[in-house]
Formats: sequence, C-alpha cells, structure tokens
Amino acid sequence: MLELRLLQGSLLKKVLEAIKDLVTDANFDCSSTGFSLQAMDSSHVALVALLLRSEGFEHYRCDRNLSMGMNLNNMSKMLKCAGNDDIITIKADDGGDTVTFMFESPNQDKISDFEMKLMDIDSEHLGIPETEYEAIIRMPSQEFARICRDLSSIGDTVVISASKEGVKFSTRGDIGSANVVCRQNTSVDKPEDATVIQIQQPVSLTFALRYMNSFTKATPLSNTVTVSMSSELPIVVEYKIAEMGYIRFYLAPKIEEDEEVNS
Amino acid sequence: MLELRLLQGSLLKKVLEAIKDLVTDANFDCSSTGFSLQAMDSSHVALVALLLRSEGFEHYRCDRNLSMGMNLNNMSKMLKCAGNDDIITIKADDGGDTVTFMFESPNQDKISDFEMKLMDIDSEHLGIPETEYEAIIRMPSQEFARICRDLSSIGDTVVISASKEGVKFSTRGDIGSANVVCRQNTSVDKPEDATVIQIQQPVSLTFALRYMNSFTKATPLSNTVTVSMSSELPIVVEYKIAEMGYIRFYLAPKIEEDEEVNS
Amino acid sequence: MLELRLLQGSLLKKVLEAIKDLVTDANFDCSSTGFSLQAMDSSHVALVALLLRSEGFEHYRCDRNLSMGMNLNNMSKMLKCAGNDDIITIKADDGGDTVTFMFESPNQDKISDFEMKLMDIDSEHLGIPETEYEAIIRMPSQEFARICRDLSSIGDTVVISASKEGVKFSTRGDIGSANVVCRQNTSVDKPEDATVIQIQQPVSLTFALRYMNSFTKATPLSNTVTVSMSSELPIVVEYKIAEMGYIRFYLAPKIEEDEEVNS
Repeated sequence: MLELRLLQGSLLKKVLEAIKDLVTDANFDCSSTGFSLQAMDSSHVALVALLLRSEGFEHYRCDRNLSMGMNLNNMSKMLKCAGNDDIITIKADDGGDTVTFMFESPNQDKISDFEMKLMDIDSEHLGIPETEYEAIIRMPSQEFARICRDLSSIGDTVVISASKEGVKFSTRGDIGSANVVCRQNTSVDKPEDATVIQIQQPVSLTFALRYMNSFTKATPLSNTVTVSMSSELPIVVEYKIAEMGYIRFYLAPKIEEDEEVNS
Repeated sequence: MLELRLLQGSLLKKVLEAIKDLVTDANFDCSSTGFSLQAMDSSHVALVALLLRSEGFEHYRCDRNLSMGMNLNNMSKMLKCAGNDDIITIKADDGGDTVTFMFESPNQDKISDFEMKLMDIDSEHLGIPETEYEAIIRMPSQEFARICRDLSSIGDTVVISASKEGVKFSTRGDIGSANVVCRQNTSVDKPEDATVIQIQQPVSLTFALRYMNSFTKATPLSNTVTVSMSSELPIVVEYKIAEMGYIRFYLAPKIEEDEEVNS
Repeated sequence: MLELRLLQGSLLKKVLEAIKDLVTDANFDCSSTGFSLQAMDSSHVALVALLLRSEGFEHYRCDRNLSMGMNLNNMSKMLKCAGNDDIITIKADDGGDTVTFMFESPNQDKISDFEMKLMDIDSEHLGIPETEYEAIIRMPSQEFARICRDLSSIGDTVVISASKEGVKFSTRGDIGSANVVCRQNTSVDKPEDATVIQIQQPVSLTFALRYMNSFTKATPLSNTVTVSMSSELPIVVEYKIAEMGYIRFYLAPKIEEDEEVNS
C-alpha cells in the first residue's frame, strides 16, 4: 500500500505543470526513500528527472516499491482541481490499477478524491553518472526564463558561453542577432538574486531554445536555477524543490552547424 | 412611459453577463412592482427567472405594463460600455420600438445614451409552483462555481447528493472519477463563507455539468448561492441580488442512464 | 556615428507598441536635433509623426543626418526583450547596414545587445502646415480610448462634434445608436483628469473608428490626449511624450455618406 501526504499540495501541482508539456506518459517510481520519475521527452532528446524525498512528506508510507504509469495530462487535469492551499494525499493499493489523489482544504470542510486509471508504460531507467562540471552557473530562475524566452523571438538556438566574468547567451536569426551577458554578481540584498559562476575552464555550448523554454516551465518551483555544463556533455538545468528534492532537465548540445554563431 | 434609474449600474451589467450565454432573445417585463424576465435557454432545457424589485431602483416609473423583447447579446454589448461606477437609467416610451440605456459617470462629466431596437418575441410565462424542497444547500458561490468547473474537466454530468453531513458532488469520465464532499460548516468568520444544509430527507440527483457551469456565470452577483433539490423536481440554483431580487436557474434532473454514477 | 542613450527605455518600447500596428516599415530620421519618424499607414489613409528631441536623451551623438529603414515588427520584437527599467542605447555607424539596440539593467549586471538589419525604404517627407484649429480638446487619454473602443462595438464610424459645452461622440450600427457626451470639466483634483475644450467655432466631423482605435495604442505614453479639428482638415490626435516630444496621428474626415449619422 502507498500513502503519501504532502502538506504543501501546490508543490505537486507545480511539478506537473513543469513536466507535462515535455513528457506525455511516464512511470512514477515509489520506494521507501522517495517519489521519483525519470522520462525522456516524446522526441527522445531531453531527459527529465524528478525526486521528492520521503522526508519532505508529512506522512510517507510505501510498503513495497511501486511503479505507476500515468498520463501526465490527465494527472494535471486532476491536480488542477486541488486548491493552492490544499493538502494532497496520493494513495494506491499494491497491484491495483488506479491511483487516488485526495485533496483536503485547509479548514477540512471540503474533501475531494480523484481516482485515475494507471497505464502500463515501458521504460528503462538510465543511469546518470555523477560528473564534475566545468562550469556551474546559479542565477535567478526568472532571469534565466526571461533570457530564453527573449532569445527565442530572434533565433532557434542559443549558445551559452561561461567564463569567469560572466555567462553569455547568444542567438542569431533572420531579423538579426542578440547577445545577453549576465555578470557574476554576489552583492545582492537577497541571496536568491545572486548570479554565481564557478568555472574550471571556459565552456561554450549550443542548445535548441525550444527545449530550454520547456525547462523554464519549472520556474515557479524555485527562485534560483542551476545550470551545469561541460564540453560534449548534456547540460543540466536544475530547479531545487525546497527541502524535498529537485527537477533536473538534461539536454545534449548541438554540434557543428551552430559553431558559427559561437564566434 | 418607463424610466428606471439604478444607482448601482454594475448590477445590471452582471445580470446580463449571467444570462446572455444561456438565453439569446427574451422579453423583459416591467410592471409597477418590478423589472423581471423569464426565459428558457435556446435548447429548452433550462429556465432562467430574474426579478429586480421596484424598491431597489433609485427612481422607478412604469405607467403601464410593458414587455420589451431584447437580444441579450446586443444588450450586453451596450451595457459593457457603461463604467462600473456609472448610474444606469432604462427608458422606453409606451408603444415605442426602442429602449434607451443612459449611463451617467459618477461626477456627471460623461453622459452616454445607447438606443437599441426592440424585437417581437413570442413567449409564454410559465407558472412556477412554490415547493417545499427536500434539501436546501447554501454555500459560497465561488466554491460552487469552482466545483462545477473542476468536475467538468473529468466528466459531463454531476450527481449531487445531499445528506445531513454534507453535500457530495460526483462525476465520472474517461480518465477516471471524482467526488467532492462539502461538509456543513457554520463556524466561519464571515456568514457568507458558511455551508448550511437543510434536509427533510436525503436527495441524490444527476445534472448536465454544461448547464451548471452556465448558471455559475451569475457568481459575481452574490457571495452565496442557494441550491434547492427534491426528487424528480428541477433543481433551483438561486443567486440573490442584494436588496432587489434574484436570478434563479431551473434544470430538470437526468434519469436512468446516469444512475450508475450515483453509486 | 550615432549613439543615443535613453534612461527611460520603456518610453521607446511604448512608442513601438503605439505605431507598429499602423505602420509596417518606416525610416527613422536622426539629426542633431532629434530622432523622428513620419509614415503613412499601409493603406495610405493615416499619417504618424513621431518626434523625440535630442534634449530628452541622456547622451545624444549624431555626427551626420541618418535615415534608418526598419521593420517595426522586428524592432518591436527586439525592444520587447528590454526590461521596463532598462536603459536603452541606439547605435549605428554612418553608412552601415545594421542598427544595434543595447539594453542595460538598472544594476548593470545584465547587458544585452540586439543587432538588426536595416532596410531601404522609399519615403517622401510630407510637409504638414501649421494650422489654427477650430476646436482643440484635451482630455484623459484613457477616457478617449474607452469611448473609441465602446463605440466600435456599435458602429464603424464616429461623428465627433465639439461645441463650447462639450464634445459628443456618436455612432450608429445594426443594433442601434450611441451618443457619448463629455462635458468641459476643469474642476478636478489632478490636472490630467481635466477635459478642456477650446472652440473658435463648432465642428462636427466623421472618422473611421478602426483608425481611431489604432491611435489609442499610444495611450500608455501619456495621461492626456489632445484632439484638434477643423472642417475639411485631417484630425490630429496627439500624445505628448514627457519632456521629449510627441506622437501625432493624422486622419482625414469621411465625407457625404456619413452625413446622416451626423444629425
């Protein structure tokens, strides 16, 4: 039997909004340590990894490991029916073919339960090796989202170049070209407004803006985003989920044809 | 001659927004006691009854009974041109074929008059018998609207089941099923936040969510909604209009095929 | 070489939003006295004239007169990437075929530059004679925009009639007719809320509402709008740009067929 009670139900709503455009169907894996998901986007280019650790739940019972296949669009429809202040409980029986989402309003005068059919989904769990990244950038998540959105009005790909001085986002399209430079900046009032750049060596990689813009759907989950890059490795765009875990998006860099934008 | 001056013109704007999606053309009936409307929706399934009592108007002159046929969509276009703080006056001559809406801005520096052609509309006035209802539920109107909207993302019909403990809204669709239970709750800070259930005997009836969602367009008119139900009788969904009257929506329950959802 | 630094970058964003729906491509003319534009709309009915005087810029360098042909839609895409608090600098080389927009965030930690290709655009500069207008109306720009929008839900043209007592906006359409009268009103708390009417002699002219509604896209630039009219002359709708200049829209009145509305 599975019963996971999350006081801050809005977190789960935001998680779904962050991944449902990228992933259609996916297995949620429950074990004693947490509630997680790993899935490729439908064109098998980007990878999403979600972890919500058991300690973050007010109540967490998972008698045996369960993998529950869900249609994320349908799951999102149900979670949208939860109020932002509702407590959400996820319930399932071992071997059952449904999952139940229970929503309790803060004053307990409204209790909803939504039952959804589970699906059989083939999936392979990729091992993601721990890596030392050559460049790690932490910056305000809204700033990152704004830059990705702005540049996609000009071009299709973005070159991200990190050096000690700052990180440069560049694009080029039919109507012209654009460069946005964010400088390292730690003298800010609130720590989440800082832009912090850790560099082993300068890196410059090219990515499809379409995917970067999908990743930024996770912006409501966290004030900051961490972008990790190494030559020839997929970029990692990570949004921490306060005291519970993270959503990480992986995307392989583009090769060759975009080199010229890189100049 | 007819001249009705309504200080709180926004009320009339809200009334139109509440009924214009349900009813295309309708006769507004004016008598010495008030301004009223009774109309079936275009598919002849739901009934709307509006009453604005003469006492609620700042000035109310109606020399003889008048029935004015209006296209509600056109009337709504004109009322949308009134500011929210404007005073609205409705004027018509006996036997004339137009009605005039006059809007006065609060400081009287802007005066608008909109003249609309009247229509001949056949209508029969249904007598609606006064009934003792088996279950009467008063609840926050926004809560009711939210539940109807949420459930319509899952299914097409709603089963409303009222008992002493609470009222349950249920639906079922391709992606799963949902139950929302609102408990009787009178210990609230503001009286309009209460959920009050008066029960002669438990009732459970099934309705098309499409219509329920149309009715909730009246939500801006009142903080609370009153839902009255008896077996085999149409449900009444009533929004009081402060110190003036009401909008009531009537809808017959669905029979048979939905019984299974009722379990 | 050209280098124009504007502290209040949002002004330039608003200017583009004000004219880009009316004009597709246009030459921006730079001289030592200012940055200006004159263009007909694509159907050659309305004329836009923009002036931003050099004194309004924090830094203004224009070595020789330059006429830069730009696609306003593309320019708008780029300016939308500037933050509302950003400083915007426009740069171009003499004889170059690109213009660069540089955006600096208030705390200087984000610097963007957007480079756009210039176009060759044939244009003739119309001399607009200075005229004494028979009626000049200054009123809140939002009020003017509201009236044009409201009336266009009823009819296609507006008759604007100015007299000492006030200004009347009238229209007529299939569903009825409308008159909005704004009275002279100078006893207001804030000067920008005043409606001030200067009359040499009463004027009544008819205009296409479609254009009037386009002009009101400039509303965010100024709290007030000035409307100048003389019989048989184009109307001038002017939005002042604080301490820098103006946007003026010119539109010829309609003749004959609309006279009847004029009654």
